Amino acid sequence: MHPTRSDPLARFRDAAAARAAAGLKRALRPRAPGDAVIDVASNDYLGLAMDPRPARAAAEAALAWGTGSTGSRLVTGSTTLHAELEEALRRFAGAPAALVFSSGYLANLAAVTVLAGRGTLVVSDEGNHASIVDACRLSRARVVVTPHNDVTAVEKALADRDEEHALVVTDSVFSVDGDLAPIAALHAAAVRQNALLLVDEAHAMGVVGEGGRGAVHAAGLAGDPRVVRTLTLSKSFGSQGGAVLGAPEVIDALVDTGRPFIFDTGLAPACAAAALTAVRIVEDTPELPARAGSVARELAAMVTGLGLPDPGLPAGAVVPVVLGRPQAALRAVAICADHGVRAGCFRPPSVPEGRSCLRLTARADLGCDDLAVIKRALTAVAELKVNA
Amino acid sequence: MHPTRSDPLARFRDAAAARAAAGLKRALRPRAPGDAVIDVASNDYLGLAMDPRPARAAAEAALAWGTGSTGSRLVTGSTTLHAELEEALRRFAGAPAALVFSSGYLANLAAVTVLAGRGTLVVSDEGNHASIVDACRLSRARVVVTPHNDVTAVEKALADRDEEHALVVTDSVFSVDGDLAPIAALHAAAVRQNALLLVDEAHAMGVVGEGGRGAVHAAGLAGDPRVVRTLTLSKSFGSQGGAVLGAPEVIDALVDTGRPFIFDTGLAPACAAAALTAVRIVEDTPELPARAGSVARELAAMVTGLGLPDPGLPAGAVVPVVLGRPQAALRAVAICADHGVRAGCFRPPSVPEGRSCLRLTARADLGCDDLAVIKRALTAVAELKVNA
Repeated sequence: MHPTRSDPLARFRDAAAARAAAGLKRALRPRAPGDAVIDVASNDYLGLAMDPRPARAAAEAALAWGTGSTGSRLVTGSTTLHAELEEALRRFAGAPAALVFSSGYLANLAAVTVLAGRGTLVVSDEGNHASIVDACRLSRARVVVTPHNDVTAVEKALADRDEEHALVVTDSVFSVDGDLAPIAALHAAAVRQNALLLVDEAHAMGVVGEGGRGAVHAAGLAGDPRVVRTLTLSKSFGSQGGAVLGAPEVIDALVDTGRPFIFDTGLAPACAAAALTAVRIVEDTPELPARAGSVARELAAMVTGLGLPDPGLPAGAVVPVVLGRPQAALRAVAICADHGVRAGCFRPPSVPEGRSCLRLTARADLGCDDLAVIKRALTAVAELKVNA
Repeated sequence: MHPTRSDPLARFRDAAAARAAAGLKRALRPRAPGDAVIDVASNDYLGLAMDPRPARAAAEAALAWGTGSTGSRLVTGSTTLHAELEEALRRFAGAPAALVFSSGYLANLAAVTVLAGRGTLVVSDEGNHASIVDACRLSRARVVVTPHNDVTAVEKALADRDEEHALVVTDSVFSVDGDLAPIAALHAAAVRQNALLLVDEAHAMGVVGEGGRGAVHAAGLAGDPRVVRTLTLSKSFGSQGGAVLGAPEVIDALVDTGRPFIFDTGLAPACAAAALTAVRIVEDTPELPARAGSVARELAAMVTGLGLPDPGLPAGAVVPVVLGRPQAALRAVAICADHGVRAGCFRPPSVPEGRSCLRLTARADLGCDDLAVIKRALTAVAELKVNA
């Protein structure tokens, strides 16, 4: 018999106290509308979340279609807006077919669990996003986690397998480190070893490659039926939701058997309309992805020039400044806030122990004045680090 | 070495052919805006998805706040709208605290994985929603699945455990069968056995209990720190998203450690605003939940009166008509469509084998004319069944 405890919530209080002592307590800090803070924390890489064109499309969709999709995509939750969005994404990304989800998290859960299951091997990069890690757990496949961007380890895991089927899964731009996966080499290994390749383009779509079509497109693999892509509508496209791009066979399997697709309410019409408008804007404005990339490189050069830890050459819009302990990252974020700059603060479990960081994200709509303010903030962070 | 196969997608085509032969192929049928079909398939139980008040709030929010929340709730994805919505939900449901998610699916994944983990026992009803089943898998807890609404089996599983901590998890209104869980008895068992109780109110909130405050509130347990509730904003509240209601300790743990909370983009402002307006409407209009319940009872009586399989007395708005084979359910849905009625068709894996059904859902805004048309459609279904 288990020991009785009078207070079933005591363990949550104990754990919270331990997190607070370790600098790992989080607080929600709601933003007010139209605050004047300079944002280098969000994933609104192209500045489209505040662009009036998708906003008007969202407003019109809410009034015309209602505020929700009212059911599963398989019941009442598919509207012609969803179909238009899927066609626009398919065409933009050069994909055989597309399927929209209510979140990128759920798109990853569905993609991995449909492509892999018991009797399949999944080979997953150690730097992959939490939604991929959770998807691997959920899939019941055997999972081998390989060192970051180590193609040799991936191919060895594939070659050594007993399973007939295998899936290689990777972020294309990693969400915190901001570096790029070796897509072409992973693809070659997958082909040699008769495996599928799943690439999460969440932080690449709209930023990386020709016109922001992502890393798979840049590698010339957009139409390859062996490659499946996931993406989010909530970053470069400024809205909410996610999608899977792949061969019609894969999309059919997701529709028929993907639990996080079947058992979830479809994306709200306002979000579908906003994303649809955003995709068209990106398609018509290739300077936007190019500008996000150049702002990212400018931020990275600024960080290095100030003597802060080198973020490396950014592959997309993410520029990490690794500061080590959680408390150091919290202090740096507070300094930025004092300068009117909102920077991201990533601590465990979002990053490994000892890798707490300031996470800066470029936006295509940041101007010279904004960058000057950001430089003053980072200068103060660098001075603090020198004096620490 | 695994056998080589030239076509990595062949297995998906084979599986699709097998599903088609079994009547389990699905197709997305996008709705057009403002079609004249009578809807008894959606989960828009109170008719609020098409109410102009939440739609206007959504439109205003998209224009004022932008089309997306731009990041994780912990980074830039929390706005004052989210905080207002959490306070409104908390107050409406009589809960100690509330936390909003971008979907009910993710709310369940977060709640179960934070409340249970390795070394915990989870006792889960066999009728629970797919998102709870997936959450149990993801939690790494030991999971005991108990027969439907069997409190004795739940208490036995709890009493027999070696684990110190345990969680009982149940839908309150089951999503397909539409019946109610024995909340008070489950709570008593959980208290005796020193376990927490998690209740998914997705299909109860807005429909069941005083003013639609759900089954936990109806059982007088809204303020009990031992009870955690999940809900969705996409059914009675006509929007998108989900929420967890519970003690502040539980909400803190979700914010600090809930992976599907931390690593997901926050709910879009338009959806948060629509849900906020909907909660206020429900609070001010207790006739709405009452009307949804009476329409559900009317539909159930209609089904029984026509000699179709007895759906039982509906606890909420869900009225199932079990027809057995998938093909029978598909035919019934087609007959309804011929009469201008959109009914839900649930087949495996949404229901167990042999339990394919027509799923009718009541809406508060269905009038006498609508019900007369629905009756004609169901009469035709009943005639087909007699002749089958």
